[in-house]
Amino acid sequence: MLKLYQFHPSGNCYKVRLLLHQLGIPFETLETDIMGGATRTSEFKAKNPIARVPTLELEPGVFLAESNAILWYFGEGTPFIPSDKLERARMLQWMFFEQYSHEPYIAVARAWIVFFGIPAGKERELEERTQKGYAALDVMEGELTKRPFFAGNQYSLADIALYAYTHVAEEGRFDLSRYPAIRAWFERVQSQPKHLRITDLAPAQAR
Amino acid sequence: MLKLYQFHPSGNCYKVRLLLHQLGIPFETLETDIMGGATRTSEFKAKNPIARVPTLELEPGVFLAESNAILWYFGEGTPFIPSDKLERARMLQWMFFEQYSHEPYIAVARAWIVFFGIPAGKERELEERTQKGYAALDVMEGELTKRPFFAGNQYSLADIALYAYTHVAEEGRFDLSRYPAIRAWFERVQSQPKHLRITDLAPAQAR
Repeated sequence: MLKLYQFHPSGNCYKVRLLLHQLGIPFETLETDIMGGATRTSEFKAKNPIARVPTLELEPGVFLAESNAILWYFGEGTPFIPSDKLERARMLQWMFFEQYSHEPYIAVARAWIVFFGIPAGKERELEERTQKGYAALDVMEGELTKRPFFAGNQYSLADIALYAYTHVAEEGRFDLSRYPAIRAWFERVQSQPKHLRITDLAPAQAR
Repeated sequence: MLKLYQFHPSGNCYKVRLLLHQLGIPFETLETDIMGGATRTSEFKAKNPIARVPTLELEPGVFLAESNAILWYFGEGTPFIPSDKLERARMLQWMFFEQYSHEPYIAVARAWIVFFGIPAGKERELEERTQKGYAALDVMEGELTKRPFFAGNQYSLADIALYAYTHVAEEGRFDLSRYPAIRAWFERVQSQPKHLRITDLAPAQAR
């Protein structure tokens, strides 16, 4: 069975659980003590040299890392990836936006506030990250006033990637009340078949 | 003809020029005054709401953004993307690594030092970015001692994505003398057919 090395509250790990559940692919989760340095051991780096979760063991000794690459691997050949070439690239555009312009601000603010504590001397950096996080939310709001989903007028990997941290942005002190299009999109994402919440146990455990 | 809105010294823009040249696809470049705020105008944001270069106009009024998504669009169906499913996902793994764990450190350090100047009060942040940039180089060096290219034992989009800023990392004051595997990989990348240097004019202009 697939083994997902993860930290359950991480949005990046949640992305993988959500897609696998929606595809009906069974997996088990192994909680990783990221705050205790478990991803920085040589044993873990032998699995994933980038030293992060999620790390997925596809079969014994075969690993894949980076949440959005894992989404791609399982999304290929399914309706989670648009069949049109341009829309497929557009989906990837939003997934790269998520990792470059969204996650470092919205996810990191939440991680500092909820899990790690604000590092000493980083108060001003947190303000900057908050500002850039709002810039990412502004971009999303603008898109979602024009279309129901980020690519191909359908729920795709891009929506999973962006939903993961956006829907818990308030834990990072982002005020979502000023983003009606984003909140309406939350409902569309949550109404997809076999939706899984970030707090839900992984299906294999829940059975 | 394809129109590439770009800032010529940007590694992200260079990625697109390099791939298009290697594929023999003609394009023209439009230099964008990123330091003067040209990407933050409402006119530019109508092209690309993420407000960055590269932004590619595929046909009049149809735009695609995010360097690695542009690479994917043109790489599909070519030898620049591995035919094996796992290696294809592995390629994307390294492209997401590039945007999350490499570019924000190595490219930003170079941009501050060479183009923008180190922002006031950011000296300590530059040190942190330098440290994280070396961590990314360490990961690359480890991979390149095991295989000739990042995915599928062949030159792929992942190599283009990682080469773009790594080969000019010394402009960001990174010492590459301690990375023999990376330097040997530079030579393998540079020896690919129709290689283009970052300083070369775009082919359409050079003709």
